[in-house]
Amino acid sequence: MSTEKLALTTNSDARKPAPAGGAHNALAADLTRLLGPRKVLSNLSERLNYRYDAIQFGATPLAVVLPESTGDVVAAVRAARAAGVPIVGRGAASGLSGGAAPTEPGLVISFTRMTRLTIHPERREAQAQAGVITLAVTEAARPHGLIYPPDPASFRTSTIGGNLAENAGGPMCFKYGVTGDYVRALSFVDADGEEHHVTRDAFDLAGLLIGSEGTLGLITEATLRLIPPAPHTRTLMAHFPEVGACAEAVSAAIAAGAVPSKLEFMDRACTNAVEDYLNLGLPRDAEAVLLVDTDGDDLDTVQGELQLVADACERAGGTVRRAATDAEGAALWRARRSVSPALGRIRPQRMNEDIVVPRSALPDVVREIRALGDASPFHLVQFGHIGDGNLHPNILFDPRKEDTHAVHDLAHDIALVAIRHGGVLSGEHGIGSMKRDFMTDAVDPATLKALWNVKRALDPHHALNPGKILPAEGVDR
Amino acid sequence: MSTEKLALTTNSDARKPAPAGGAHNALAADLTRLLGPRKVLSNLSERLNYRYDAIQFGATPLAVVLPESTGDVVAAVRAARAAGVPIVGRGAASGLSGGAAPTEPGLVISFTRMTRLTIHPERREAQAQAGVITLAVTEAARPHGLIYPPDPASFRTSTIGGNLAENAGGPMCFKYGVTGDYVRALSFVDADGEEHHVTRDAFDLAGLLIGSEGTLGLITEATLRLIPPAPHTRTLMAHFPEVGACAEAVSAAIAAGAVPSKLEFMDRACTNAVEDYLNLGLPRDAEAVLLVDTDGDDLDTVQGELQLVADACERAGGTVRRAATDAEGAALWRARRSVSPALGRIRPQRMNEDIVVPRSALPDVVREIRALGDASPFHLVQFGHIGDGNLHPNILFDPRKEDTHAVHDLAHDIALVAIRHGGVLSGEHGIGSMKRDFMTDAVDPATLKALWNVKRALDPHHALNPGKILPAEGVDR
Repeated sequence: MSTEKLALTTNSDARKPAPAGGAHNALAADLTRLLGPRKVLSNLSERLNYRYDAIQFGATPLAVVLPESTGDVVAAVRAARAAGVPIVGRGAASGLSGGAAPTEPGLVISFTRMTRLTIHPERREAQAQAGVITLAVTEAARPHGLIYPPDPASFRTSTIGGNLAENAGGPMCFKYGVTGDYVRALSFVDADGEEHHVTRDAFDLAGLLIGSEGTLGLITEATLRLIPPAPHTRTLMAHFPEVGACAEAVSAAIAAGAVPSKLEFMDRACTNAVEDYLNLGLPRDAEAVLLVDTDGDDLDTVQGELQLVADACERAGGTVRRAATDAEGAALWRARRSVSPALGRIRPQRMNEDIVVPRSALPDVVREIRALGDASPFHLVQFGHIGDGNLHPNILFDPRKEDTHAVHDLAHDIALVAIRHGGVLSGEHGIGSMKRDFMTDAVDPATLKALWNVKRALDPHHALNPGKILPAEGVDR
Repeated sequence: MSTEKLALTTNSDARKPAPAGGAHNALAADLTRLLGPRKVLSNLSERLNYRYDAIQFGATPLAVVLPESTGDVVAAVRAARAAGVPIVGRGAASGLSGGAAPTEPGLVISFTRMTRLTIHPERREAQAQAGVITLAVTEAARPHGLIYPPDPASFRTSTIGGNLAENAGGPMCFKYGVTGDYVRALSFVDADGEEHHVTRDAFDLAGLLIGSEGTLGLITEATLRLIPPAPHTRTLMAHFPEVGACAEAVSAAIAAGAVPSKLEFMDRACTNAVEDYLNLGLPRDAEAVLLVDTDGDDLDTVQGELQLVADACERAGGTVRRAATDAEGAALWRARRSVSPALGRIRPQRMNEDIVVPRSALPDVVREIRALGDASPFHLVQFGHIGDGNLHPNILFDPRKEDTHAVHDLAHDIALVAIRHGGVLSGEHGIGSMKRDFMTDAVDPATLKALWNVKRALDPHHALNPGKILPAEGVDR
């Protein structure tokens, strides 16, 4: 474990004026000359908007490029490399691990204008540039009887490029898989400004890029697999007097043969945060709330699977409420989708973990993390896609009043609970800068060395999104 | 394109005596001292059996190790590295691209004794060592109501380690995905003899190893995802007076909304080879035979999907025959499973291609390849998992009587047809040594350089399975 603590917030840095002279003016001027003024942001007030993602503040970029083509990306990368500054790719910046927040001043390439999207119904494929909004893929595919399943909570704003960089999941990923499972091919620009087009062949370079958070290359476009939507969906909510009982119900339901299409968990603190925000009538006294969808071609099977879940919940001591209509189901899901804004009202900042543990370990893991939270001075909430063991313990805090080192230590203790139970650090949000220090606990030194060797192979000058994923002690330059 | 032609056969080499003195004796002696005589094969007659896969002859190994544990693999790798000889991993050697056939004398590590297999029904996972036979996973999982879907044609003999190394597919992969889609974690031994355990996290090193044919590391064990089998399956066979019409029917059926669980195509030459071998009553005069399964939870949907396929076949001019019983369905599938042995009876050797093209390009691709075959002096057959555009044009030849350079040229022309139609070289069998030369047509120089950089990052001394996947002109050592 590094002795150097993570800067959980750089708010103080953000209030400092950004560097104004020399390098960045030269870079911004160079980029403006190359790409024209419409595609380059160089004013401080503009650049300040590109220093954070949805959870983490970073360094103010020296310049921001808004490319409209792969050619623009190539030109921007080459200019940044010539200027010797790092390059950070950015989609909608709705990420929750600091992946798009620069750790040092440099060039930010924001893909929001690269939004070309073509549906090929006969191939069941979408061709999407990096800036296409996630939801837009399904919206364009639906008239052809197809959908794009990956559904991160931010899917109304997040971009395909960001989803690919973080290998984003979502409620549907338990049954349908994560972003990477839907990628047939992708194009990327490497650290030298070379363009590549790769399929999922031998030496799966595409797969290596997916989830690498822009540290190995900048994804510019992807070929995505589409599927027909299930015709039938049923929803239930269950609440439990005890957190571990909820996790036990999930394990029992899946062991009994249910494959829910969505399976989401919120603890009492989380439920109350949502209830304070929206007043939906959620059970405030329950220690755990479970939201479950089953879906499929056959209504009897769909209802049968929901019954398996209901039985498991009741046997574990839960109270089950079935949605009578699709509208009631949608209302129940509104609770889960509102967790992030609801938590933002309690404390201005949060450390969001993304652990994945074996499903059978869930009861113990949820209880142990609850105990860590209760023993700490912080507001800790737990929620997540509990079906695949993906939990999001969140530590809510105010960096102006609370000790960010203590937040870091609690987050580290939570990560160690996951690792002790055979789990991993990140299911869908990436490692970013936020969980980077914990990688030394999760990955053995020989494998970290192999990861660093791969990083150096594709980005020898360490120009792409420095300070993400790989802990600094692995550096040997 | 390299001017150096692929050695399509090294039969002549295989008839030469293997090197007898010096290095290999020292290596075999060293290994025997380290691992005991039971785990090391050093006699020429034993070693000769480890020079080929199911399609390609290679160099006779200096020594063969049959490890019983990861520790044995580590010791063997270190001994081979100390002796300065290359290392080739091997499962059942049922591969069809030369992946397990050594290109130069060295150490072969044959994983057939590493067969530990544990099913975790509550996690829907199997933990399998590299030598576990593919079918054994489903056989062990079935009592728990689970299956392991990847079903390469050789699944009764092939091993999980070999399937992972080649990222094997099979008839079910159109609906259910290939081997890599079922891997949650894996362990491997690297070129330095270091052991690694990796999950599918940021920097998907596991994904990079899958399909890399033992050129980046030796996979020793994997955690595999299991799924419940579909309760209903229906089968049909259709035959067509013209090859392109069959491909058109497939495209039309899928565009209409059918997601068959299996979708296999055989051309007339292939059907007649099987009929000569087994006399199953296949339509000898048909230019194309299509075999289709639909499966799912809902029998009406399953039958509805089969009807969509039947309609599309008939509209394209095909004749449809539905299997009335499961036994009749199994009999139809026996035809497809017998293709490899049937072809082996016609000519002693074959060049097996594994192209994948966009489904909409299938009619043209199948017709163009047929025309190339007809214009050549060789026996050319086509079959494959036509649902995902994965075709196996096979050139049958006798290396004692026919010009292997002409075989190579025809294979190259076929690869170029695929690439011209936006396809790739390998869907499930890997590149191996057999299609390595064609990589320069399929992959641009900048991406080949990136692949070489990744190779060097993980295997800097080029010790692991040299001569596979990456064309030699990329080497810059």
